[in-house]
Amino acid sequence: MTAPAHRPRLGIATVCLSGTLEDKLDAAAAAGFDGVEIFENDFVAAALTPEQVRARCADLGLAIDLYQPFRDFEAVPPDLHEANLRRAEHKFDVMERLGADTILVCSTVSPDSVDDDDLAAEQLHRLAERAADHGIRIAYEALAWGRHVSTYDHSWRIVRRADHPALGLCLDSFHILSRGTDTAAIRVIPAEKLFFLQLADAPRLHMDVLSWSRHHRLFPGQGAFDLTGFLDLVLATGYTGPLSLEVFNDVFRQADPRVAAVDALRSLLSLQESVAREGSDRARASVGGLPSTPPVEGFAFVEIGAGREAEPQVAAALDALGLARTGQHRSKPVALWQRGSARVLVNGGVEDPGATMVAAIAVESPDPAASARRAERLHAPILPREHRAGEADLAAVAAPDGTSVFFCRTEAAEGWTADFAPTGRPAAADVGPTAVDHVALTQQTDDFDGAALFYRTVFGLHPEVPAEVAAPFGLVRSLSMTDAAQRVRIALSVAAVRRGDWAPGVPHPQHVAFATDDVEQVARRLRERGLLLAIPDNYYDDLDARLALPSDRLASMREHSLMYDRDEHGAFLHCYTPVLGSRVFFEVVHRIGGYRGYGASNAPVRMAAHRRARLQRSRRAPAPDTH
Amino acid sequence: MTAPAHRPRLGIATVCLSGTLEDKLDAAAAAGFDGVEIFENDFVAAALTPEQVRARCADLGLAIDLYQPFRDFEAVPPDLHEANLRRAEHKFDVMERLGADTILVCSTVSPDSVDDDDLAAEQLHRLAERAADHGIRIAYEALAWGRHVSTYDHSWRIVRRADHPALGLCLDSFHILSRGTDTAAIRVIPAEKLFFLQLADAPRLHMDVLSWSRHHRLFPGQGAFDLTGFLDLVLATGYTGPLSLEVFNDVFRQADPRVAAVDALRSLLSLQESVAREGSDRARASVGGLPSTPPVEGFAFVEIGAGREAEPQVAAALDALGLARTGQHRSKPVALWQRGSARVLVNGGVEDPGATMVAAIAVESPDPAASARRAERLHAPILPREHRAGEADLAAVAAPDGTSVFFCRTEAAEGWTADFAPTGRPAAADVGPTAVDHVALTQQTDDFDGAALFYRTVFGLHPEVPAEVAAPFGLVRSLSMTDAAQRVRIALSVAAVRRGDWAPGVPHPQHVAFATDDVEQVARRLRERGLLLAIPDNYYDDLDARLALPSDRLASMREHSLMYDRDEHGAFLHCYTPVLGSRVFFEVVHRIGGYRGYGASNAPVRMAAHRRARLQRSRRAPAPDTH
Repeated sequence: MTAPAHRPRLGIATVCLSGTLEDKLDAAAAAGFDGVEIFENDFVAAALTPEQVRARCADLGLAIDLYQPFRDFEAVPPDLHEANLRRAEHKFDVMERLGADTILVCSTVSPDSVDDDDLAAEQLHRLAERAADHGIRIAYEALAWGRHVSTYDHSWRIVRRADHPALGLCLDSFHILSRGTDTAAIRVIPAEKLFFLQLADAPRLHMDVLSWSRHHRLFPGQGAFDLTGFLDLVLATGYTGPLSLEVFNDVFRQADPRVAAVDALRSLLSLQESVAREGSDRARASVGGLPSTPPVEGFAFVEIGAGREAEPQVAAALDALGLARTGQHRSKPVALWQRGSARVLVNGGVEDPGATMVAAIAVESPDPAASARRAERLHAPILPREHRAGEADLAAVAAPDGTSVFFCRTEAAEGWTADFAPTGRPAAADVGPTAVDHVALTQQTDDFDGAALFYRTVFGLHPEVPAEVAAPFGLVRSLSMTDAAQRVRIALSVAAVRRGDWAPGVPHPQHVAFATDDVEQVARRLRERGLLLAIPDNYYDDLDARLALPSDRLASMREHSLMYDRDEHGAFLHCYTPVLGSRVFFEVVHRIGGYRGYGASNAPVRMAAHRRARLQRSRRAPAPDTH
Repeated sequence: MTAPAHRPRLGIATVCLSGTLEDKLDAAAAAGFDGVEIFENDFVAAALTPEQVRARCADLGLAIDLYQPFRDFEAVPPDLHEANLRRAEHKFDVMERLGADTILVCSTVSPDSVDDDDLAAEQLHRLAERAADHGIRIAYEALAWGRHVSTYDHSWRIVRRADHPALGLCLDSFHILSRGTDTAAIRVIPAEKLFFLQLADAPRLHMDVLSWSRHHRLFPGQGAFDLTGFLDLVLATGYTGPLSLEVFNDVFRQADPRVAAVDALRSLLSLQESVAREGSDRARASVGGLPSTPPVEGFAFVEIGAGREAEPQVAAALDALGLARTGQHRSKPVALWQRGSARVLVNGGVEDPGATMVAAIAVESPDPAASARRAERLHAPILPREHRAGEADLAAVAAPDGTSVFFCRTEAAEGWTADFAPTGRPAAADVGPTAVDHVALTQQTDDFDGAALFYRTVFGLHPEVPAEVAAPFGLVRSLSMTDAAQRVRIALSVAAVRRGDWAPGVPHPQHVAFATDDVEQVARRLRERGLLLAIPDNYYDDLDARLALPSDRLASMREHSLMYDRDEHGAFLHCYTPVLGSRVFFEVVHRIGGYRGYGASNAPVRMAAHRRARLQRSRRAPAPDTH
């Protein structure tokens, strides 16, 4: 990868972030942005004078790269044109006081405007003259829903016709990619006429483009647009202005702006990395770099945190699953359970007696230090290292939901397993888990998109097909992520609205799924120990109706509470333990052939079964349920 | 209104409600439904056998009116047809055990199906033959996104062609009204071929109809469809089956099913009332009635609850606004403040010292007892009456958010004001509030649609245009409601995702807006007492840029922190107090001409100003903020 001639300036529109203008500026600066677009509504609601905003930005090391938006200017009758020029002069005054030299002018949506490119060009020329008097440039942008101008090539024809040095274009990836406009014509726009570049991704939604734009934009890489190809084309023109994010998103609008700003910056770093990997020579030369991603090579371990009362439940379940407690940490209350490459740490040091949680996940890396350096460059919070002399010094960062993430090389000479004293306990069962298949982490609404971004950029995972499940206590969205070799799978899920505040005893559980090649035998052992989640007959009757499976197979599935799914690659059998302690359960999965999914369609049946098991338990033990 | 020949049976699909099948059945029965549609996924996830479900429904007094859905049946190649018949036979067995005699068959979306009405009719005929052997009827429904059959008239042609007594139609208002299909042809369908009627409303959204249907349906009257006209047409055919709700809604899916079921029933009662008022003779004769709505005639009072520390703040603000403390309740710690018909009760008996809330609203009714009877018939919870001998016995119910709602006749001989002993305090200020203009009640996500339904049906208010505001701490949706004479206005709002969990000191405030005809003088008095919320200069600079108001008017607005809006009817000036205690503030509004709005576009500026005021106050008084 060629070293870039200059690091590109990274920017963010204040509208991307939640809070007052002051909150937004602080968050953008803290994340390390070089500049901001000041969204007019944020400025208008602020008590700071323009001079105070200017000084605050200077203190924070932020340039004001753009003032935006100025709406409904061009192609109007003469009296309205005069009124619009007056309106613009007021904004130019504000900009001079702010020290901002570029203003975004959106293509008009006014019913008072006419479809006349010559008139639009003429009036924009006059606006540019006025702007130039103040040392200000006009960046004209085609809104995807503009009344007469809705495509970037149309806006470029008008700018070319207007022919004024203070008039150029703003390209916004959303407005262009949402309409599916052919992007090839970007190549004919001279770099000096590209005044500004706004970047936003979005999921593919079938809805009106205005609502799509105003509510569902995402940071680059979080959606379905080809931002890499788009940025490549823009940079290939020679554009050297800021890469600036303009993302309207209902969740980000109300989330902690300090977290959202870090996600925003992370998305831009990752986008540049993609361009550096896949882009044209000219584009590659103009982007910043990141340390490369050492490939993740599987789960090293998963750590379950458990309180005093919950820990025996977790241990009993691991034992029933077929793992053996092979080690005890030399300085911490942590036991190592394993069978094959399925390794679970149980950390009994959690204060709340009934609590359980997935406290940490650890992935195998060929170069843990390099993995950690990359995570640090991507602004992942580095966790303080607590280890004694002689113990492994594991590199760890925090995922957005607070889960600790470790990078390890288990087979290294000084590997982490050496921290555990052998227990001399009997070996693991003959049949049982062979590895961790996936870890399922339930996210808060605010963390979901950020978590996907984290695992994509920090682990190098790619998202699989998102799923949506109508679960008993509300809609659940999920996104599974995996590496090319499918050795690390993370399943993220989120309650789309919230879930079950009315339903006592249903928090959002997390789980660890173990791979096995004999799920029936594992299920039998779980059942014998009273640790198999019972799946109701109605499920099997429906399976029979739908799939007409051989009756002996169906009988066996029914007997062992195995659930079933299939896809074009293969089949899937899986079973569950009840929830152990407050919020962790285990799954055992058997992938037959090349089945790629997670049995998502069975999730509602599993959730209802978990609810029943919890109610039954609370009836048996009428002690107050702390959840 | 003609008395109906029989009360129509009211039903609800289990998919409308949150929880397990057991939760849903309990909620439907508690609300008073006569029957349910069992949604297959709910049944499949349940541990109850069909016989147990049957017994449970019987215990609860619920008929199982429909089993649904059966998908992707018709117009397929022979081998698939055989498989589909086998699948259906399994479901017929389940239905016999359930005691359900009608199954919904949706028009196919399968890529294996062909566009052949004759084949569809032939295969449906065969299905009906099989069904008839079990005493089961097939209700065929055109999904709006059906592959070959997507309109009800098309489904009717196929049913007519299939010509089997056990085969009829299911009409679903969503599938018909979402596509804008002409409903006139409903009149040609014989009642005996209308096997089932599903009712759902929806907002007008510009998105793909499948997502619209699966996520955004509403109960009748909560959306934009003409359900009254639709039901009128169906009843005019002579249809006497259940009126059954099938509503897929992301919020209802996770809300308390007992609350949602009451909303559901309330919507059906209100819909029947509309048909009874506006429908054809035949339709009117077949719906149930409700006590009529006595028109609300204005606010009698608003009651603010306040803790020990907050109460003086509220009192100081009312004094500064120009109200006088004219009365003291004879047995409760409640003061009466008033000026003109603006009356506020301040109830100092709230336990939390810093808390404030809108505890109650009271509306004038010509017949309070009749208003209360109607509310009770609409399943509004009746509040226990606490009054001593000789004190007014006010009829009160609880709104969905817990606010108490009273019906009063202030001018009655035994009016509620007699409970207050005159204070002999000086009269109200010469200039000030003349009435309560509106009360703004912030709702929880789960309560928003239900609150609108409540005020529409219980008060007889109609919803005005919904608004959506990009507020500093997240998107806020609002809906104002008023009576025909605009004497009672309620403004409901909700944080669309959540709001500002990250932002300390920003709960969701409620407010009371007073009408005045001299807002400037009221604002001056508020400012003198330090109780005027300061609006920043940037707002006025922007107002100047946008509207070019006369400079003296602008200067006066700036001086008095008056915000401004206008519509096609008139103009609007308004100002605010800071938040008093935990969550209540006051607004003063001056409607000029016939302005109908609420200055919604100014809300973000007001919210940012409230945040600033709160931060300034907490800096001045560094005692720990309890919020």
